[in-house]
Amino acid sequence: MSFDIVSKENAKIKYVKKLAFNENFRKRERYFTAEGLRLCYDIFLSGVSIDEIYYTNEAAKKFSEKIDELISYAKRAYCVPVEILKEISDTKTPQGIVCLCEKLDKQFSLNTISSENKIIALEDIQDPGNLGTILRTAEALGMNFIVMSKGCCDFYNPKVLRGSMGAAFRAKTFFADEICNAIECLKKVDFKVLGAVPDKSASLITDVNLSGRIAIVVGNEGNGLTQGVLDVCSQKVTIPMLGRVESLNAAMAAGILMWEIMREVRG
Amino acid sequence: MSFDIVSKENAKIKYVKKLAFNENFRKRERYFTAEGLRLCYDIFLSGVSIDEIYYTNEAAKKFSEKIDELISYAKRAYCVPVEILKEISDTKTPQGIVCLCEKLDKQFSLNTISSENKIIALEDIQDPGNLGTILRTAEALGMNFIVMSKGCCDFYNPKVLRGSMGAAFRAKTFFADEICNAIECLKKVDFKVLGAVPDKSASLITDVNLSGRIAIVVGNEGNGLTQGVLDVCSQKVTIPMLGRVESLNAAMAAGILMWEIMREVRG
Repeated sequence: MSFDIVSKENAKIKYVKKLAFNENFRKRERYFTAEGLRLCYDIFLSGVSIDEIYYTNEAAKKFSEKIDELISYAKRAYCVPVEILKEISDTKTPQGIVCLCEKLDKQFSLNTISSENKIIALEDIQDPGNLGTILRTAEALGMNFIVMSKGCCDFYNPKVLRGSMGAAFRAKTFFADEICNAIECLKKVDFKVLGAVPDKSASLITDVNLSGRIAIVVGNEGNGLTQGVLDVCSQKVTIPMLGRVESLNAAMAAGILMWEIMREVRG
Repeated sequence: MSFDIVSKENAKIKYVKKLAFNENFRKRERYFTAEGLRLCYDIFLSGVSIDEIYYTNEAAKKFSEKIDELISYAKRAYCVPVEILKEISDTKTPQGIVCLCEKLDKQFSLNTISSENKIIALEDIQDPGNLGTILRTAEALGMNFIVMSKGCCDFYNPKVLRGSMGAAFRAKTFFADEICNAIECLKKVDFKVLGAVPDKSASLITDVNLSGRIAIVVGNEGNGLTQGVLDVCSQKVTIPMLGRVESLNAAMAAGILMWEIMREVRG
């Protein structure tokens, strides 16, 4: 059994490891890593180009057909021992496959949005699990345009990509330098922009007309939406709640609001 | 400044640490720990008795009023240095307060359920974050009776308690040795039991009559509901989905289904 790379000190391994664990390095290099058969295969199916793939013999045997496809699709492929793969993996029990890709260049101009009628916008969502879940849910509920503020956690964080179940690679995304400006742009092209708040004085989501162009804005886990964002929203909306909890988890609130919009679309 | 405990080798500290990190030990001892001012205070407000409280001087200064209340409420209180508190904390940046409580004894008999009309039942939910989120959402959406299968993650896992935002201490719970038997019991007292599946052939949740006694059953993150459970459910229900994701996150699915039930209750 021969390996293409056998040392943890190999420059490629050190580079990939740094990408997997260091957000600033990902930002600077404009590359990211993805791990696991399903996620790597989703990248392939989404037509995103794969620069390098690292796999173990064990994975090649277990998932032979799909790994073969991925190996021919990637520009370069390296078979590595399990202990090298563990170096570049961020899971406890790695499946034995990691790929390296250039970041997606999918900035859409908000002014030219045409077919998208339903948008979710996120202000400073910090938890990678929440962001991944929101992406996954947004796709399932038919909202495939996502606006994210600069303060959101890194879109290419391995936990975000995994949690999204591949939806990250299929979603249309806009990373807003200034989310208030993005909201103003959306309003100019006739979006009703709804700011989600855990506040009984806001309109109940069930009382709001959700037909036509709708954008829902959901805020940070601890602090909710900033006043600046609320000031530019068309309307504040809330999910009616009982009991003593003061708010829903941010991903859950986003999910229920997106579900309400889908409900309206389905009629 | 004087401390009540100064050594990590102190028997009490070792005991509390083991409880915080070891599920089997929690099971055997029938005690659990909770961390953070908000959670400890929620325990106090819920009337659950606190055996011991461990706090730092820093926390006592920062949250003086509430910590004082907690200290008088607890049977015993110990002021400890920050490095000792870190030993018994499972968060990266501890707030400086941990309490030790006896497990709640809140097993309800399913046969005598009277006022509860809306129940959520969980089969083998594995992720503590998901279980915590489900408890938090269940309370907010008015479902305060939770049935959990033996295969669910530990209810007293610190991540569950924190994620529930205290709802864990207020919910009525039933830990079912055999979840199929529990479902049969619910059906005998006129519950319609809906098994959640990501399956287009199941009834859309929006098409199901959700008035009266309703129990929603949600399954494991990876595998969904077992056939055994599906066989005893009154009906299979699903959330309509678009896109290429094959299912929603388990907590999200539970949340949307509970929301639909609340929608029905509100009329």
